[in-house]
Amino acid sequence: DERQPQAIRLYPLSNYTFGTKEAQPEEDPSVKDRLKRLEDYYAKYGMRRSGEGVLVCHEHNHPHILMIQIANAFFKLPGDWLDYNVDEIQGFTERMNERLAAPPGTSLASTSPQTWNVHSTLATWWRPNFDQFMYPFLPPHATRPKECKKLYLLQLPESRVLSVPKNMKLLAVPLFELYDNSPRYGPQISALPHYLSRFRWEFV
Amino acid sequence: DERQPQAIRLYPLSNYTFGTKEAQPEEDPSVKDRLKRLEDYYAKYGMRRSGEGVLVCHEHNHPHILMIQIANAFFKLPGDWLDYNVDEIQGFTERMNERLAAPPGTSLASTSPQTWNVHSTLATWWRPNFDQFMYPFLPPHATRPKECKKLYLLQLPESRVLSVPKNMKLLAVPLFELYDNSPRYGPQISALPHYLSRFRWEFV
Ligand SMILES: [Zn+2]
Ligand SMILES: [Zn+2]
Ligand SMILES: [Zn+2]
Ligand SMILES: [Zn+2]
Repeated sequence: DERQPQAIRLYPLSNYTFGTKEAQPEEDPSVKDRLKRLEDYYAKYGMRRSGEGVLVCHEHNHPHILMIQIANAFFKLPGDWLDYNVDEIQGFTERMNERLAAPPGTSLASTSPQTWNVHSTLATWWRPNFDQFMYPFLPPHATRPKECKKLYLLQLPESRVLSVPKNMKLLAVPLFELYDNSPRYGPQISALPHYLSRFRWEFV
Repeated sequence: DERQPQAIRLYPLSNYTFGTKEAQPEEDPSVKDRLKRLEDYYAKYGMRRSGEGVLVCHEHNHPHILMIQIANAFFKLPGDWLDYNVDEIQGFTERMNERLAAPPGTSLASTSPQTWNVHSTLATWWRPNFDQFMYPFLPPHATRPKECKKLYLLQLPESRVLSVPKNMKLLAVPLFELYDNSPRYGPQISALPHYLSRFRWEFV
């Protein structure tokens, strides 16, 4: 019955193990450079697709989101731009593995999964122009959006090793901290409590 | 495939006809009175349930929400508190009919439907205390919430008559007007663009 909130099982934060791996420096030195790279991409391939993953666990029966903190400053979700020719979920999975899976060839990689259980799309954000503004809808008359970013809910298994690049931290941030906190987390991450509000949590 | 946004068909605003019916004065003269009534209810029956409906149509291929404006001032969604002993969807349907269906016994009532196509729950808001603050999640340690409000996406048929109480207006407000506009629309209505961001629209 879709009319009722769907149940999602959450495991305690302590079930997850955080390892480290090689640093992953930012690909673009500034926002301006990143937008320039988007413009070059658009000229060649059209609208850029991107995907980000929402990993949820709990502490004392309140949902927490696992998110990346860079340089002790800004926060982002794991995920990134997709290549132009790749299947959406496959491309997103590769981006998640780059960010948080054990590096290929290591002993950990042979025992931990390289897959992510994509439950559903939580939101789609659109970038109508080559600037920093994105919207959770396609604005009127924005017929040629430059980027389309999907946020996916990922279901974490009961336990898992997550390998975090050395220059990043993976933090579990509670919903109540994100809520209404756009100044600190930005418009997308601070909206996560809204996107998750349609689910019913089973705290295991 | 739940991983992909679900398609929802939207019809033009001009497909809907707005009639008028008898005024429906506010049941509570002030917010304080309303909270007092909630407290009395809670003492007798426990947590209050409420339901509100999100009716979506389009104008020039941009989604618009039908919402009620009272006294040319504040906005609210159709719906209200449910009775303590009623089935949730049944109770919500009754509240929607009171607000927007043709009055029983009129000739219009015999030809227009008294049903609402509840598609899914968009969000659940919780009121932990007997005050004005609600949250789109249950805050930690709020084990005895006083009210639980669900926002439902309703699918409008291709055309329909909506009967609006004389002291209210029914307005179609575009998503881009609601977005990030909590000062004017409040935290729940201004979050609607987020709740709807997981759907793909088919503009008919
Ligand atoms: Zn605690
Ligand atoms: Zn915590
Ligand atoms: Zn309009
Ligand atoms: Zn237009």
